[in-house]
Amino acid sequence: MTRLFKKHYHPAGTAPGTLRNLTLEQTALLGPARYTLACRDAGRWGEVHEIRPADIPEASAQGPLCWLHVQGMPTAEALELLGNRVGLHPLAQEDILNGGQRPKVERFDDSLVVILGIPEIDDEGALHLYQTTLFMGGNIVVSVLAERLDPFTEVRRRLRERGGRALSEPDDLLYGLLDAAVDHAFPVLDSVGERIEELEVEILDRPDSSTLERLHGLKRELIMLRRYLWPTREVINQLLRDHDDLFTPDTRMWMRDVYDHTVQIMDLVESYRDMTASLLDVYLSSMSNRLNESMRTLTIIATVFMPLTFIVGVYGMNFEHPTSPFAMPELGWYWGYPLVWGVMILAAVAMVAWFKRKRWF
Amino acid sequence: MTRLFKKHYHPAGTAPGTLRNLTLEQTALLGPARYTLACRDAGRWGEVHEIRPADIPEASAQGPLCWLHVQGMPTAEALELLGNRVGLHPLAQEDILNGGQRPKVERFDDSLVVILGIPEIDDEGALHLYQTTLFMGGNIVVSVLAERLDPFTEVRRRLRERGGRALSEPDDLLYGLLDAAVDHAFPVLDSVGERIEELEVEILDRPDSSTLERLHGLKRELIMLRRYLWPTREVINQLLRDHDDLFTPDTRMWMRDVYDHTVQIMDLVESYRDMTASLLDVYLSSMSNRLNESMRTLTIIATVFMPLTFIVGVYGMNFEHPTSPFAMPELGWYWGYPLVWGVMILAAVAMVAWFKRKRWF
Amino acid sequence: MTRLFKKHYHPAGTAPGTLRNLTLEQTALLGPARYTLACRDAGRWGEVHEIRPADIPEASAQGPLCWLHVQGMPTAEALELLGNRVGLHPLAQEDILNGGQRPKVERFDDSLVVILGIPEIDDEGALHLYQTTLFMGGNIVVSVLAERLDPFTEVRRRLRERGGRALSEPDDLLYGLLDAAVDHAFPVLDSVGERIEELEVEILDRPDSSTLERLHGLKRELIMLRRYLWPTREVINQLLRDHDDLFTPDTRMWMRDVYDHTVQIMDLVESYRDMTASLLDVYLSSMSNRLNESMRTLTIIATVFMPLTFIVGVYGMNFEHPTSPFAMPELGWYWGYPLVWGVMILAAVAMVAWFKRKRWF
Amino acid sequence: MTRLFKKHYHPAGTAPGTLRNLTLEQTALLGPARYTLACRDAGRWGEVHEIRPADIPEASAQGPLCWLHVQGMPTAEALELLGNRVGLHPLAQEDILNGGQRPKVERFDDSLVVILGIPEIDDEGALHLYQTTLFMGGNIVVSVLAERLDPFTEVRRRLRERGGRALSEPDDLLYGLLDAAVDHAFPVLDSVGERIEELEVEILDRPDSSTLERLHGLKRELIMLRRYLWPTREVINQLLRDHDDLFTPDTRMWMRDVYDHTVQIMDLVESYRDMTASLLDVYLSSMSNRLNESMRTLTIIATVFMPLTFIVGVYGMNFEHPTSPFAMPELGWYWGYPLVWGVMILAAVAMVAWFKRKRWF
Amino acid sequence: MTRLFKKHYHPAGTAPGTLRNLTLEQTALLGPARYTLACRDAGRWGEVHEIRPADIPEASAQGPLCWLHVQGMPTAEALELLGNRVGLHPLAQEDILNGGQRPKVERFDDSLVVILGIPEIDDEGALHLYQTTLFMGGNIVVSVLAERLDPFTEVRRRLRERGGRALSEPDDLLYGLLDAAVDHAFPVLDSVGERIEELEVEILDRPDSSTLERLHGLKRELIMLRRYLWPTREVINQLLRDHDDLFTPDTRMWMRDVYDHTVQIMDLVESYRDMTASLLDVYLSSMSNRLNESMRTLTIIATVFMPLTFIVGVYGMNFEHPTSPFAMPELGWYWGYPLVWGVMILAAVAMVAWFKRKRWF
Repeated sequence: MTRLFKKHYHPAGTAPGTLRNLTLEQTALLGPARYTLACRDAGRWGEVHEIRPADIPEASAQGPLCWLHVQGMPTAEALELLGNRVGLHPLAQEDILNGGQRPKVERFDDSLVVILGIPEIDDEGALHLYQTTLFMGGNIVVSVLAERLDPFTEVRRRLRERGGRALSEPDDLLYGLLDAAVDHAFPVLDSVGERIEELEVEILDRPDSSTLERLHGLKRELIMLRRYLWPTREVINQLLRDHDDLFTPDTRMWMRDVYDHTVQIMDLVESYRDMTASLLDVYLSSMSNRLNESMRTLTIIATVFMPLTFIVGVYGMNFEHPTSPFAMPELGWYWGYPLVWGVMILAAVAMVAWFKRKRWF
Repeated sequence: MTRLFKKHYHPAGTAPGTLRNLTLEQTALLGPARYTLACRDAGRWGEVHEIRPADIPEASAQGPLCWLHVQGMPTAEALELLGNRVGLHPLAQEDILNGGQRPKVERFDDSLVVILGIPEIDDEGALHLYQTTLFMGGNIVVSVLAERLDPFTEVRRRLRERGGRALSEPDDLLYGLLDAAVDHAFPVLDSVGERIEELEVEILDRPDSSTLERLHGLKRELIMLRRYLWPTREVINQLLRDHDDLFTPDTRMWMRDVYDHTVQIMDLVESYRDMTASLLDVYLSSMSNRLNESMRTLTIIATVFMPLTFIVGVYGMNFEHPTSPFAMPELGWYWGYPLVWGVMILAAVAMVAWFKRKRWF
Repeated sequence: MTRLFKKHYHPAGTAPGTLRNLTLEQTALLGPARYTLACRDAGRWGEVHEIRPADIPEASAQGPLCWLHVQGMPTAEALELLGNRVGLHPLAQEDILNGGQRPKVERFDDSLVVILGIPEIDDEGALHLYQTTLFMGGNIVVSVLAERLDPFTEVRRRLRERGGRALSEPDDLLYGLLDAAVDHAFPVLDSVGERIEELEVEILDRPDSSTLERLHGLKRELIMLRRYLWPTREVINQLLRDHDDLFTPDTRMWMRDVYDHTVQIMDLVESYRDMTASLLDVYLSSMSNRLNESMRTLTIIATVFMPLTFIVGVYGMNFEHPTSPFAMPELGWYWGYPLVWGVMILAAVAMVAWFKRKRWF
Repeated sequence: MTRLFKKHYHPAGTAPGTLRNLTLEQTALLGPARYTLACRDAGRWGEVHEIRPADIPEASAQGPLCWLHVQGMPTAEALELLGNRVGLHPLAQEDILNGGQRPKVERFDDSLVVILGIPEIDDEGALHLYQTTLFMGGNIVVSVLAERLDPFTEVRRRLRERGGRALSEPDDLLYGLLDAAVDHAFPVLDSVGERIEELEVEILDRPDSSTLERLHGLKRELIMLRRYLWPTREVINQLLRDHDDLFTPDTRMWMRDVYDHTVQIMDLVESYRDMTASLLDVYLSSMSNRLNESMRTLTIIATVFMPLTFIVGVYGMNFEHPTSPFAMPELGWYWGYPLVWGVMILAAVAMVAWFKRKRWF
Repeated sequence: MTRLFKKHYHPAGTAPGTLRNLTLEQTALLGPARYTLACRDAGRWGEVHEIRPADIPEASAQGPLCWLHVQGMPTAEALELLGNRVGLHPLAQEDILNGGQRPKVERFDDSLVVILGIPEIDDEGALHLYQTTLFMGGNIVVSVLAERLDPFTEVRRRLRERGGRALSEPDDLLYGLLDAAVDHAFPVLDSVGERIEELEVEILDRPDSSTLERLHGLKRELIMLRRYLWPTREVINQLLRDHDDLFTPDTRMWMRDVYDHTVQIMDLVESYRDMTASLLDVYLSSMSNRLNESMRTLTIIATVFMPLTFIVGVYGMNFEHPTSPFAMPELGWYWGYPLVWGVMILAAVAMVAWFKRKRWF
């Protein structure tokens, strides 16, 4: 089972902004960071190519619009270099290295840092949340994704196509990346929705004890998703409300569209929570139903056979007295045996009829 | 079972405003779009008649007030043509093609796009939510309903009657359409209310396992309705609060009436949710009651017959000893058999009396 | 069972403000409307007497203060006439005819329409909510109550007494009527409170299945009351907040008192909801307790008697062999029978002691 | 059982401000009101002594600061006299006579009426809420407490000590009384907390059916406390927010301390509610645990002994045929009886082992 | 069991600001207070050393920045002396002595008192909340921690290192202490998270009755944590919102980071609450599952063996009649015994097949 809540904190009291490299094992897991740069020149986006950290350009108001994408976890040194070049605040650098941050937006003068969590379901069906950091300062936009996931393929394709609208200004590019990051939640929610519907069929049809485990797993994932997606919505809202001076009216309108998506995502998550709650009720009720059914079967069987067994027990007694007329005279009657059968059949029929009338089956 | 939550999203990162036609199968299902135009001339509404997309008039501040109704899903090309003529923003066009949007209102200068979800119960009793898009720009009002449902019959009838108040200004026409769309929820809620009351009678009277399934179905529908009707209320509220410059004082007052209806609808949905929650409690309690009842029946039967069966078992034993006075002498007593019956009847009566005193039946 | 949620809507798309008469059956039920007029002259209230609709006075700023009370459902024609005379807006007329409105307040220039729901428990103990419409315009105050209930008896008595403070201005009269309408909820809540306490005693003492039904009935009524009383509070709040220009400072203070009452009413409703929720928990727990009790009785009986029955069964076997010393030699022992009894009594005592030690009884 | 929610309302429609004396029985219960007056002169508080209603001083801006404390329910006449002397509004007088008011604060020009509920647990452990009314106008502060409780002993002691800071201004005195009234909730909450912890131990250790009753009693008290303490917090907040012109900066700071106490009280009440909810869950779960335990005991006993009883029953059958080799030949075997015992012991051991492996005990 | 909610209040009505020493036992428990002073001189922090209360420096705007840390509970006299020197308000002194305060921030002109609760898990796994009081006035910062816990080790280490940024201004130092205090919650939450995951594995795998007790213990701790951590968040928020004039822009940015941490902490607490609620559901459901399983086992056993026992009982009857052909003729049949076995085997197989088809096992 993957850990639900990861540890991500310094020892309490550490000086803020302290950068520490990953341990060797952690780096091995994530692989070294790769730096990809694309710049726009003369109305077209140049080739996307990998660079060394030392070649990161400086942010300035002039110069061509550039997009630097960092895939994998950069070393503390590279991050500091990057920070100096483009103006990334030490606190933001710390957030990148620590990971597991709550989605948030930070404004430093004219530069903006947005931290988001991107949900992803891996090949084994486990849900992960990957932190992505977006930075916009001057004419440069930086995206850092310290994991293997790449949600920006489609954006890159659009750059390559070099046509159409879009992506000619920093705020526009930032919007494109935000939109891609936010929309990454849809297929995840879709898969959650499908699993809810499978569970629904299963619970109504033939619930077993593994059903419960999976239902709990779903709730757990929804708790986790909710914890990351609520602040995501708040982040986009803050961008629109507090930092709209950094966006052109046109981009603001597209950003509202992103905001609508985050609202839609939260609506889905809340509906899913309501659904899983309702499914648990159905599960418990159907357990209760089955218990009732077993109980009634048992009660009917016992109620029919216990009296019968008593009756046959009676005539298994060995009372004997040479002269007493009370020593089980029935045993010697000519019609004794059929009579007992008659009584027993009557008793059984009466019991069954009584249960039938009470609609027990 | 119909899918609870439909997929409606582009691959993450697609350029916004990208229009894609429906696949062939989808179009076959919905049928081709039909364009109906009605214009008001000299104080009267002209005939309503079908037109080709190419004949869609251009929006302008002058000219007669026109209402274009698109029934069924238009092709991307027709939609683009329509967008150019009346000034429908590409984002709104995208929303129409994608469907399944959250109700919302978008303002582009002096034009207004309102997206609503209209609930409808089909012939098989399944709940559907159909997206309707209303557009008001200049002297033209457009309504797009990419499904088979037509909630505007009554509005059309009022146009034909050509008399009385109403529908002489774009905002007034928009109000008429909004009112018709919102009020479409009432019969749906009514049918939900009726089913709740049927379930109530059934649960109090004779609950079975299918009851539970239907109760869950109701909750599922209420979750779905709530997800669409909450934002509907917000949409009308936004129209009143943020875009009241587009409405005459008179229409504003009628719009407040529409808003009251959305509040009433939400009140109903919330009351229904409370009711279904209470019904589930009753269901679970009555399951628990029935279990108790079965249990008590079983316990009484077992408590009465087990001791009796034991007693008759005792006298079925075969102890025999030629001389011992302890080898079941009772078997040979003159009054032995009646005595045993006496003891057994006494025991049974005592048991029953004991249960009676504890008010078990 | 009375219908929980009544239908009250036009076919979607009907022109707003359309007035339709009640069907004949409906009118028969409610009886024809009676119009009672009282005017204040020279500092005293004149006699209250019935008038015909045609004699309804016109509202004007001058002239004596009048109170027109309409009891029963007026015809659409009479309502239109009334509307014209006193300036009652068509939308408000529609609301009166449709009934079942959510409590609300509407302001048209200097006139005010307040719609409230008055709860009442009928002779059979069923809860009803009656809509009352209050109108204040110029020097006239109108109250319409389309049902048999009359909450204004006390107000009428105060008019007749012709003394003391109060009821000399329209806003003061409106306050008097609002106060009477709002306070009508107290005895209803009182009766609900009494039933909760009865149920409490019953559930703690001797719950049966009808208890559950009544508890559900209570919850149902509280859902209904809550749906109408929340907006009532909002209505009074709106009067104080948005329309305080229509009230003298003195009346505003009295109105705050009415507002306090609505708050107190909602407090009670919420407390009652908490109480019923807690009672359901107690009910379920006591069901569970009783099940445990039955189960333990059964388990003890079965655990004591099953082994005993087995033992006596053993000695009911018919093994016989002329020479074998293993063919149930016990049956022939001198002390065989008492020994078996000894073993059985020992076993039974051991079992009972074991259950005793585990504190099962 | 004490009544949970008392009736406290006039017949709907009664003229507001109507004063009615208590009935004789009520007065007998509460005892006649006693009026105690203390005035501050030359920087010291004079003796506290009882006065007659007719000697109540008039409020004025000049003159010494006085504190009039009314213990017990005054007659309507005395209250009216008091009202005239110190300027207590008729509505406030009505509230005192009616009792059972929701905590609230009323401002009439420069005078202030604060109504609070003081919780108290009587000798039999029952929770009561006593209404106290505080009035500050000019140089006089009045406190009315229509019950036997006296929360102001400590304040009185501080007056007598005639030293130190405090209680030299009306607002300061009002603060002192408010503080004493609010802090009266702490010992009550403490006793509730102790009972919760007792119940916790009991439920985890040996729950019985009376446990449930007491848990329900606690919830009932918390519902009641919450209903009165929430508005108390609001009252202090309103004093700080809306009426801070009546307080010196110094007193405002002390009042913030009182506000902090009300917040702390509400925190406790909410935590207690959470605790009781959690305890109910534990109770239900432990009921479920015990049921499981009983069930398993029963199942094991039945599974072990039913097959054995069947086997011994087989050999109790009386099949006999002079020549047939199939007429229960086992009965005649030399080793028949020990063999049957062997089979039975084997079966029993196998069953027990099977339950053991399934970890049933 | 440690007390969940401690008593911390004066008798109601005590003069505010009254200081009382701890009783002897309490002091013995906490040990005498130790006063540690560190001052910053010429850009470096001097040695940290213990001082006597009489040597506490006076706060002034000039002079070097000093940090006074009080570990353990100071006597009322020492606290008063401290209060006079640095300007600590009597109310704040009272709060320190009483302990158990709700986290809050108090502003007295230019000095600031912040009270926080620091959660800590002791060696026996019990959760404690320790109150810490931070004071900033002029050039002095005071921290009082009346318990054994020391969360400021890391801060002290940074002072000793005498290098780098940070801690050169009072607000900066206050931030450092706040940050250390707030971050102290992370390891506690981490340990809670681990216990939740352990419980999760246990409940899904093999729940027993101690599981429930531990789950309840967790909920209890989360209720306690929530009660203290919610106001902590509010305290930091208030510092940022209302008292930002006391902080440099730089420190404000670091404080926002602390605020983010409090938000993250609350997110965790809420997620944990959701998780424990879900775990309880799983526990109850798995109890229900096990009950079903036992019930089915019992029902199958009873249903198979009761009819068989009845059949063998029948042939244990002693009907005998010299001539009657109806006196159990089967007993004398040649194939009688095998036939009965055949019937019994058939019956058993049919029963088992029936249960199999109903998927009971």
